[in-house]
Amino acid sequence: MNVTVHGRTQSFRTVAFDRAGNAVRLIDQRQLPHRFAIVETANFCETAEAIHDMTVRGAGAIGATAAYGLAQGALAFRGRRLPEFRRHVETVYRTLKAARPTAVDPVNAMNAVRATMRAGRTVTEQQSLALAAAEEFANEDVRHCADIGRHGARLIRNGMKLLTHCNAGWLAFVDIGTATAPMYAAQARGKNFHVYCDETRPRLQGATLTAWELAQQRISHRIIADNAAGHLMQRGEIDLVIVGSDRTLGRTGEVANKIGTYTKAVLAKRHGIPFYVAIPLSTIDWHLKRGRDIPIEERHAGEVLGAWGTISNPQSGRLVYVRTANPASDACNPGFDVTPPELITGIITPAGIFRPGDLWRHRHKLGHTG
Amino acid sequence: MNVTVHGRTQSFRTVAFDRAGNAVRLIDQRQLPHRFAIVETANFCETAEAIHDMTVRGAGAIGATAAYGLAQGALAFRGRRLPEFRRHVETVYRTLKAARPTAVDPVNAMNAVRATMRAGRTVTEQQSLALAAAEEFANEDVRHCADIGRHGARLIRNGMKLLTHCNAGWLAFVDIGTATAPMYAAQARGKNFHVYCDETRPRLQGATLTAWELAQQRISHRIIADNAAGHLMQRGEIDLVIVGSDRTLGRTGEVANKIGTYTKAVLAKRHGIPFYVAIPLSTIDWHLKRGRDIPIEERHAGEVLGAWGTISNPQSGRLVYVRTANPASDACNPGFDVTPPELITGIITPAGIFRPGDLWRHRHKLGHTG
Repeated sequence: MNVTVHGRTQSFRTVAFDRAGNAVRLIDQRQLPHRFAIVETANFCETAEAIHDMTVRGAGAIGATAAYGLAQGALAFRGRRLPEFRRHVETVYRTLKAARPTAVDPVNAMNAVRATMRAGRTVTEQQSLALAAAEEFANEDVRHCADIGRHGARLIRNGMKLLTHCNAGWLAFVDIGTATAPMYAAQARGKNFHVYCDETRPRLQGATLTAWELAQQRISHRIIADNAAGHLMQRGEIDLVIVGSDRTLGRTGEVANKIGTYTKAVLAKRHGIPFYVAIPLSTIDWHLKRGRDIPIEERHAGEVLGAWGTISNPQSGRLVYVRTANPASDACNPGFDVTPPELITGIITPAGIFRPGDLWRHRHKLGHTG
Repeated sequence: MNVTVHGRTQSFRTVAFDRAGNAVRLIDQRQLPHRFAIVETANFCETAEAIHDMTVRGAGAIGATAAYGLAQGALAFRGRRLPEFRRHVETVYRTLKAARPTAVDPVNAMNAVRATMRAGRTVTEQQSLALAAAEEFANEDVRHCADIGRHGARLIRNGMKLLTHCNAGWLAFVDIGTATAPMYAAQARGKNFHVYCDETRPRLQGATLTAWELAQQRISHRIIADNAAGHLMQRGEIDLVIVGSDRTLGRTGEVANKIGTYTKAVLAKRHGIPFYVAIPLSTIDWHLKRGRDIPIEERHAGEVLGAWGTISNPQSGRLVYVRTANPASDACNPGFDVTPPELITGIITPAGIFRPGDLWRHRHKLGHTG
């Protein structure tokens, strides 16, 4: 998507690959929204570190980064002996996997690259196939987000006011994003609308990343405290809610997403406001039978007890942590919640929009291989 | 209530009067929770300034401060001529009223003091009566909060988990508070319970003031992001919600309170969790006929776009503002919302607990003089 730096607008992907330099190019998300910078990782160890230190975050984005990292590591191998090459690739795989041990996307992405590589008969052939597979993984992520945009854009009518929560934007994927995809597609079709961004405490991904994206794309938006959406709905100020998802249960239609999503769904239901969840197929879990079995990560209390921001010159990008809460108090910080299907109007997927209860029936269209 | 400073526990009121020094003594709430300090105002101008600059905040607390300020101003008068004295008192009244022009409590409090003063035949008599009336105003505030605690304590059973929003604690009144009063009374009766404090963005009164109060009173508590309450309710982690109110409509039972209150009431209703509002009689509005006619203050965007906290040593109390949000984005910041009566289990008042729809029927018990 577009980014304007010093008055000049350029198009970027969140994750890209520089063949000549054998480097992975990443938008440094640790510095956003206060400073825009591109990081190039010189080798697979630096790529793993970029996944680990959150230079890159978001399901699709870390999947593509791991895929490129595996190709980068494979391409760096000097030699012709396949057994040695395989051992080297195994080391690269393990290093990248260990960078974010609980995430499933890097593993799936790297497995896809490895499966393609095996068709090569020489080291050189396998190296070429690895890069081609990584590029294909990234391009498919972009195509799927574009498809989500195409299906979701129909929901947005002129003059509408939307609400979104957290960041399921292009920064979380290779490009375009999921919850934001219908907005970008509707904008491209000339529609006018306004987006309310929940700031999304405690980590503020809405106030920082989503607001930055929408500002760069020149989409009319304002940030609100997470407390304000209910009041705005009461006053008829919200027509449509679109959020992303970290995991959607294919058997039940339950949606796990950033803490606070459930609350917005409950409010939307009360006010008769359509509530949509936009997801890539990779986040559908076809195995788990009950949403309450989804493990909810209890995150560090410090996230709730303080906040990160800039003090004087926001453009300096120098972030400081301030303790906002009473110094003697502790916090409870669940990272995610689960929204039941009866609160969800539809699931926007690359294959179309489905009612949450219909995912299982349409599982073959949705990539289920059982 | 109790405050422990350097290991020594002492009892304080939020607002008190020093007769010998003719000074109003205030807990400096601008520095809480990071530093506890008492401010003494040397004259009524300083008292007005303390109301203006938020050294003291909260309906009951600023009412009592204005009442004491009027007495302080009256007592400072040197002379015996009543007409001159009356002109002086009028100046004091106007100065204190102008300190927070939209608040109704200082005006009501000062009118009560003036009405009592008029019985005095000399300047000295009127001065004594002014101080007695101010003391009576403050003591009545404390008695009413104690009555709320007595009625509300019945709702809290051993082992319960409570939720509260914003600060309707003793710092907002002369002592004890409203939403916190049942907690303090239940603690005094030996009950064990845990309180979840909504941090209450954007101004964080829950994470700062309520958490500080509960910590000082050694009540088990944890701060949560405003996004987390829905998830905790889903998991059966919340048994009872008690909040305060800025204005309650006596004719309809609608409750205006800090932004986010409505959301918590909607969630509580969905989960069958009792939702109570604790109020002093002074906040009942017997005139307004519809909640949607309550003006909702649109506050400064900077509150949503950043946060106040301490950087290194929290005890230093030096607060800094950090910009948390995208520098190029704006915010929408409604300060209050209105909760309809069907979401409210009961209104806890000094005169007992009433269903919101029954306030009008019981208006004579509730101080309505119509």
